[in-house]
Amino acid sequence: MATLRVPATVPNPSEDADALHQAFAGWGTDENMIITILGHRNAAQRNLIRQAYAEKYGEDLLKSLNDELSQDFLRAITIWILDPTERDALLVNEAVKKWSPTNHVLIEIACARTSTELFRVKQAYHSKYKRSVEEDVAAHAKGSLRKLLVPLISVYRYEGPEVNISVAESEAKILHEMIESKSYEDEELIRILTTRSKTQLAVTFDQYNQTFETSFEKDLEGVAEGHDFVSALWAVACCLVSPNVYFEKILRLSIHRLGTDEEALTRVVATRAEVDMEMIKETYFKKNNTTLVHDVQGDTSGDYKATLLALIAGSDA
Amino acid sequence: MATLRVPATVPNPSEDADALHQAFAGWGTDENMIITILGHRNAAQRNLIRQAYAEKYGEDLLKSLNDELSQDFLRAITIWILDPTERDALLVNEAVKKWSPTNHVLIEIACARTSTELFRVKQAYHSKYKRSVEEDVAAHAKGSLRKLLVPLISVYRYEGPEVNISVAESEAKILHEMIESKSYEDEELIRILTTRSKTQLAVTFDQYNQTFETSFEKDLEGVAEGHDFVSALWAVACCLVSPNVYFEKILRLSIHRLGTDEEALTRVVATRAEVDMEMIKETYFKKNNTTLVHDVQGDTSGDYKATLLALIAGSDA
Repeated sequence: MATLRVPATVPNPSEDADALHQAFAGWGTDENMIITILGHRNAAQRNLIRQAYAEKYGEDLLKSLNDELSQDFLRAITIWILDPTERDALLVNEAVKKWSPTNHVLIEIACARTSTELFRVKQAYHSKYKRSVEEDVAAHAKGSLRKLLVPLISVYRYEGPEVNISVAESEAKILHEMIESKSYEDEELIRILTTRSKTQLAVTFDQYNQTFETSFEKDLEGVAEGHDFVSALWAVACCLVSPNVYFEKILRLSIHRLGTDEEALTRVVATRAEVDMEMIKETYFKKNNTTLVHDVQGDTSGDYKATLLALIAGSDA
Repeated sequence: MATLRVPATVPNPSEDADALHQAFAGWGTDENMIITILGHRNAAQRNLIRQAYAEKYGEDLLKSLNDELSQDFLRAITIWILDPTERDALLVNEAVKKWSPTNHVLIEIACARTSTELFRVKQAYHSKYKRSVEEDVAAHAKGSLRKLLVPLISVYRYEGPEVNISVAESEAKILHEMIESKSYEDEELIRILTTRSKTQLAVTFDQYNQTFETSFEKDLEGVAEGHDFVSALWAVACCLVSPNVYFEKILRLSIHRLGTDEEALTRVVATRAEVDMEMIKETYFKKNNTTLVHDVQGDTSGDYKATLLALIAGSDA
């Protein structure tokens, strides 16, 4: 469930555009107004506000925000107001340009979106960057990471409810053999993770659990420290089957490490507030014995903090 | 250009459905009527006839045809009247079930369709077979053929006109190095063929031509005999950049080998009659000093021959 809260009565997009224009006027900027409006509108409403703003004031709202805001607050508002498809295309492009084998953004977008959402991101990428996601990722990734990331970002996974139990049993065994023999880069392991439906994989991981009395994700997590490829495999397995577990960990690390990782914090909040942030918050509470809202309050400040809290407060508000 | 000829005035779909029903009535079957109607209707018109037939007679036209016709004639009419997307999904499924490393149907569908067409085939495959093309191909293909076919069938290629000349220059060199060192299964060669846009690849192959005074496709063809993987690479390169060259060769071999290969002949005619069969015929004439129509006339017979000729005659009619 989403944490985004939209007021019962939403002003029309033209009124919101006027209020934002007013917030930018004069010497100071009315940051509260910006957060109150944009932090409480859904993707469709934000798109309409951007359209209305461009029509009335002849400038992209993103450009105006860029002139008025700065640093983490600017990044959070910018990433948030983009249409989810456009935002993902931008995140993919940033990940490609600042290539790092420890960056899991591509995995998030390939695995924690629906097949249709991923396809639309690829269409948006074509329109904006005049290349395909596949060619850009394939040209940057190297070695075994390429063998994992390219099929992951390419596949159009089946999303129906059908599962094949005997396939799940045999593939759970293959996964376990690969873990036992530390053959993490094995083709069969990659084939299973990059082509099977999420529902099928959930059953395969269940079979793994029942047969070997341990979890596939935990078996990966146990050896992921300092091992970029296994860490990527863990991210894949979690994003596909239990994204709340994955995103909880990213949030926890972004807050608890020395110096907040604002990039990760902002990305997870902006991409999940309209999707499953309530569930991520529940997982966070179970793992940390404290609420995400409390930790974000303690770890961030100013307008950036206010923006994040507007998006994640949800039923805590 | 297509060879399919649709009459200037087309009966409405309900009239066509009635005429077909009439052709099935009584003791004999009026094969001429079936060919006259179905051999001269485009994909949209054939879909409407199937709809009208199902509504009026409570049976799928495919089922009725299956009861009345047989062998090559049945196969040709059946494959032809399917919607191109549905037909490709069926061809993919057949190729997966009767797996053979020398079967190039998957390559045709992955490379000689537009990106949107390929995506729709994958959607149709989900609906019909309750699995993804990717998982079925990955589960059947082995070794280096898997490394080629899975990305080929997965990729959503960019289709805009933009090309990057310096990328074309450097990738032409990579391709040439791989050919020179016989490293046909090299990852970089596979990366280039499976991710770059067709327009970009056309320029890369041009650069190859200019720099090395030989053609990439011909360099592959020269060593393809008896080498399944190189033969697959040749099919990929041709289907992407010069499908007329590829399909001419498939037609030539299907006709000229001892005993006609009706499966290939039927497939190429059914899948290209509405696309580029005029161009394939021109290429055929240049290569063989005889027309495709002449050779099909000499090599086939009966209603099967009449069906193929209805579809390929085009401006020769």
